[in-house]
Amino acid sequence: MNLTIDAAAIAADLDAIAACSDTPPPGVTRVVYGEADLRARAYLRARCAEAGLLLREDGLGNLFARWPGAEPDLPAVASGSHIDAIPHSGRFDGTVGVVGALEALRALRRVGHVPRRSLELLIFTSEEPTRFGVGCLGSRALAGALNPAQLRALRDGEGRTLDELRAAAGFTAPLEQVALAQGTYAAFVELHIEQGPLLETEGLPIGVVRAIAAPAALRVHLQGEGGHAGAVLMLGRRDALLAGAEIALAVERAALSTGRPDTVATTGRLTITPGAINAIPSAATLEIDVRDVAAEPRDRALASIYSAVAEVCGRRHVAYQIEEVNADPPATCDPEVVATIIGACTELGLPYQVMVSRAYHDSLFMARICPTAMIFIPCRGGVSHRPDEYSEPEQISQGVAVLAHALAALSA
Amino acid sequence: MNLTIDAAAIAADLDAIAACSDTPPPGVTRVVYGEADLRARAYLRARCAEAGLLLREDGLGNLFARWPGAEPDLPAVASGSHIDAIPHSGRFDGTVGVVGALEALRALRRVGHVPRRSLELLIFTSEEPTRFGVGCLGSRALAGALNPAQLRALRDGEGRTLDELRAAAGFTAPLEQVALAQGTYAAFVELHIEQGPLLETEGLPIGVVRAIAAPAALRVHLQGEGGHAGAVLMLGRRDALLAGAEIALAVERAALSTGRPDTVATTGRLTITPGAINAIPSAATLEIDVRDVAAEPRDRALASIYSAVAEVCGRRHVAYQIEEVNADPPATCDPEVVATIIGACTELGLPYQVMVSRAYHDSLFMARICPTAMIFIPCRGGVSHRPDEYSEPEQISQGVAVLAHALAALSA
Repeated sequence: MNLTIDAAAIAADLDAIAACSDTPPPGVTRVVYGEADLRARAYLRARCAEAGLLLREDGLGNLFARWPGAEPDLPAVASGSHIDAIPHSGRFDGTVGVVGALEALRALRRVGHVPRRSLELLIFTSEEPTRFGVGCLGSRALAGALNPAQLRALRDGEGRTLDELRAAAGFTAPLEQVALAQGTYAAFVELHIEQGPLLETEGLPIGVVRAIAAPAALRVHLQGEGGHAGAVLMLGRRDALLAGAEIALAVERAALSTGRPDTVATTGRLTITPGAINAIPSAATLEIDVRDVAAEPRDRALASIYSAVAEVCGRRHVAYQIEEVNADPPATCDPEVVATIIGACTELGLPYQVMVSRAYHDSLFMARICPTAMIFIPCRGGVSHRPDEYSEPEQISQGVAVLAHALAALSA
Repeated sequence: MNLTIDAAAIAADLDAIAACSDTPPPGVTRVVYGEADLRARAYLRARCAEAGLLLREDGLGNLFARWPGAEPDLPAVASGSHIDAIPHSGRFDGTVGVVGALEALRALRRVGHVPRRSLELLIFTSEEPTRFGVGCLGSRALAGALNPAQLRALRDGEGRTLDELRAAAGFTAPLEQVALAQGTYAAFVELHIEQGPLLETEGLPIGVVRAIAAPAALRVHLQGEGGHAGAVLMLGRRDALLAGAEIALAVERAALSTGRPDTVATTGRLTITPGAINAIPSAATLEIDVRDVAAEPRDRALASIYSAVAEVCGRRHVAYQIEEVNADPPATCDPEVVATIIGACTELGLPYQVMVSRAYHDSLFMARICPTAMIFIPCRGGVSHRPDEYSEPEQISQGVAVLAHALAALSA
């Protein structure tokens, strides 16, 4: 196959989507169902329609853009990712996998490729946990790992329900129709920036992902006692922030204590009440993310965090509650889809490395309902979730070429 | 003098002002120049006018309500406090000293008292540092401790200038006319809840304040490196929150290390960027409050915080900047005003204790321009800056009675 990847079209799509942001440049913020998210969706719907794809959206706003195959009743082959972006982050995470899959389909059409199986672009709603505290909301629901009742119970930080927000965004189809049956897809491939330094360090253009790290998320609520910062003496205090500070440090120690570089643990959010310089913090909430490509050391780190919370709060007379937001099992990629991606790299003469994904992705949930694998491309310095996240146009085009070849093979 | 204090009028005034809040009950939030603050000011202006007081407001919104004395050219005697309230706090801090002084003036008028010196109610703008990060904004400016250029440089958390916000609130008089000359007042007395447990524990209705603690406020800016919580391994991290957590714990140790129960140090605010569960915190800001009734141990605690910041940030490769927001000297109250308050207690047969104020007050700055002292009343459990802050109507009336007798003596 002699495909041409249109790097200028990809760059134009990336620019257009980066311009949809809830915050001014250079950072990008696209919170699900927010104004910027809806503008980006409108842009992509128009591009999909131009490319001759048939559009469907489910009740969460997951978007399916189909190129019907010669045998449209066969399970389709899908590719895609997400377009939501955490506050003040970059323009490539997720989005590269959406505009990359779109360009892969356009490139295949340009050369007159006729797929036997239908090919489908998927844009998943809310891979980032920013708004509802749950990562991979859309793909999790597609895989049946969040049922309609659980979806209806979700609220954002301002207390608004998912139901209310999805309706306001124009997504009103029944939540009962979101979950997809096993066998809906013959394969799923996600193109994504690595979000780590390995490919750049090794000077390799392509990573072929064989496993996706197992993330666990905790929310720890601390309730101490407030009071005037000048008037309450030190020894009578039950300062919720100080308990939280000790817990954040224990989270770091928990990751280091497994003795594995693969274990990472992060306190990404810490909010305190009332939050005034002259008031002792009465309450604090920490959000903690713990990952490993293996479940056992991750669970060991989690156990060590649980016991640190109990010890710190007991000593500081601070009440606590630990909410386990999720503790998903890791995913193993499908060997045949992995082999197909390797075949595409070989065909294109691109060196690759088989690797694991430390970050988690919609593929973690797609792997539950169909054979799944991922293609990684390098990003500068391994940086992600920051305004300076960057992949070169050539690196993106190479990833899209591998994706297009793999989709052609999988849909044949 | 046979004064009657109208407890029902005080209760009605407290209720009316508590109803002006930026947040729903039970907590009270009144941020300076906010809608609730402006409603509370309108209420008080109306009450002052009803009481026959002559109103003046300066360019910051400090309010002066004067009852002209028989010799109006003599320096006046003033009393007052603030009505702004930190987020989710109580209804007595500051407000008791405003409605209490108002009722003291009304009570004196009811018995036909004719003051020789004018008597004046002062309502200070923004005693709380909530909006501009500077405590005692209004009284600090009255005392000339903040000049017009420094006032113009102030911005709130959303970047809006003090100038813009005061104009929007209707205060447009020149900032050059805010500072008052030495000798403007013959005396100033502030009635306030204790914000500590001493009077309640001792079963005493009145505290006579002889010194006001010296507050220092630091803002520490930390700049580490962000990144994806799953992809960046632990040992390569420069996590700003973890540096902040260590610093918050060092702040606690710094207060304990002086060996004096009087030293208190609090990290009342800690904000992190970007603040997403799956992002390593790249930046953090801590706001730290350090106090003692003596300057030397307070400065020792500050020095220990400075060295902890340097040590922690050096070890964690996090850049830092320490902003000394203020480091005001402590104030000693005027012995004659203190003696006058003690005389009022004796006349009324109310037991009292001479004490220090651990919290700081507008009196700290009024003491720079005129003889100043404070009257404390008990508050339940010593609790303040919380929704459950409480003083009994009888306790408030006793404080107002002492204030009225002291004002009568000072204005005679």
